[in-house]
Amino acid sequence: MSITVQTIIDRLIAPVGLLEQTVDTLKSGSPDKPVRKVAVVMTATYAIIKQAVDTGADLIIAHEPTYYNHLDETNWLEGDPVYEKKRELIESSGIAIFRLHDYIHEYEPDGILSGMLHALGWEAYADPDNQLLLTLPPDEAGTVGDLAAYLKRRLGMDSLLLAGDPDMAVSRIGFLPGAPGGRLQMDVLRTGGIDLLIAGETNEWETNEYVRDAVDMGFAKALLVTGHQKSEEAGMATVAEMLRAQLPELLVDVIAGPPAVQRI
Amino acid sequence: MSITVQTIIDRLIAPVGLLEQTVDTLKSGSPDKPVRKVAVVMTATYAIIKQAVDTGADLIIAHEPTYYNHLDETNWLEGDPVYEKKRELIESSGIAIFRLHDYIHEYEPDGILSGMLHALGWEAYADPDNQLLLTLPPDEAGTVGDLAAYLKRRLGMDSLLLAGDPDMAVSRIGFLPGAPGGRLQMDVLRTGGIDLLIAGETNEWETNEYVRDAVDMGFAKALLVTGHQKSEEAGMATVAEMLRAQLPELLVDVIAGPPAVQRI
Repeated sequence: MSITVQTIIDRLIAPVGLLEQTVDTLKSGSPDKPVRKVAVVMTATYAIIKQAVDTGADLIIAHEPTYYNHLDETNWLEGDPVYEKKRELIESSGIAIFRLHDYIHEYEPDGILSGMLHALGWEAYADPDNQLLLTLPPDEAGTVGDLAAYLKRRLGMDSLLLAGDPDMAVSRIGFLPGAPGGRLQMDVLRTGGIDLLIAGETNEWETNEYVRDAVDMGFAKALLVTGHQKSEEAGMATVAEMLRAQLPELLVDVIAGPPAVQRI
Repeated sequence: MSITVQTIIDRLIAPVGLLEQTVDTLKSGSPDKPVRKVAVVMTATYAIIKQAVDTGADLIIAHEPTYYNHLDETNWLEGDPVYEKKRELIESSGIAIFRLHDYIHEYEPDGILSGMLHALGWEAYADPDNQLLLTLPPDEAGTVGDLAAYLKRRLGMDSLLLAGDPDMAVSRIGFLPGAPGGRLQMDVLRTGGIDLLIAGETNEWETNEYVRDAVDMGFAKALLVTGHQKSEEAGMATVAEMLRAQLPELLVDVIAGPPAVQRI
């Protein structure tokens, strides 16, 4: 029996069960299409879609939206040359795109978080009952600046954003990939003993200002903002490994790349 | 007749008229309090409130929220040590804080935008019917990299974020201070002839990915992201100048500062 797009979708949602409300839908292609190869990516950018098509992928599994808004609404983009050219590439190639955002975050543990902890070599340091809180062992602990350098090296980043003192000692970390909102970020920051929040993306008027005030008040708190893509991209390896284990005959590529913006 | 907090609020809302729904409310202090000195700021941070109190200000006029969320809701912050310490400083000092966000953006022209154009020396280049679209004269036009260097120098920034080619020639700019959302940012980017969008703050999965795709398709588009604070802070000078002109006996300080985060 051949593997189809629907076979794979069923595997991706199985750990959670069908969600009634979700952005995780088939953005293009047919559920019945046979699949020999999938490409697992953070975002189905124009360049990554071309690369996936050129390397023979039938299905792209992407964490982020295809059309520049969370709900992948497209009415407002009708006639936009960027939208039209991307849609034409997708339709003419026949490639299927499934978004895997809500489901993978609902895995137990969160598939993105566990994949990121693996990429950082931090799996053993996560609290068993709340994996986004980490206690570094004494030989791994260091300053905020040390941790920034480690993140850059392990995640392939040139720079990140800091609020707080780069020389502050850190032993307890809160780690929130992506952009889960300022309230959750601040909730983690005020959790007892947390010195440092490592966040993917913030709203400047929320978490950044909270940490600025905390530091100016003399509290030992700091914030590192990695950028959204690099805070989650390596976490998509979780789904690549799951599919390889469950469907050994399926070819699974992981395509990663640089962030959309560079610091100048 | 002495100037009160209410006198000043009346002046600030007069160009627009009373808005029914607005975040622009008195966050602390009494409308009847006499005011000898005001401080005009981007955000009433803990450090800036102390500075304002120390220099004798009776009222802070701030563009951004005081308590780390757009609506300045505080229920979720009860017991938070950063919130409690900030609230105590505000209450014990008796300083009044009025937020001026929606009104100043409703001024004709938008007071933040016109203040930023003044700070950048670009007032003459704005389209008369839509000031956020600019045409640079040939002797001011240059590359994206040239404009990035100009923005850094004029607004006091160490770096900014770029999507696109730093060597691309620019003559038509869209300029959107703040974080007005991805749809408006993309609407401006697709406006005929616009080469470059200068944005304050973006969501990474929206405008950044749109420009990445546009560039990979071969469209001559670029994005510079300045950071939210530096994209609007100098624009608050508009209200300082308005108050100085209308109430010559009032002392008006403008307090600016570095962003909450630094690039490391």
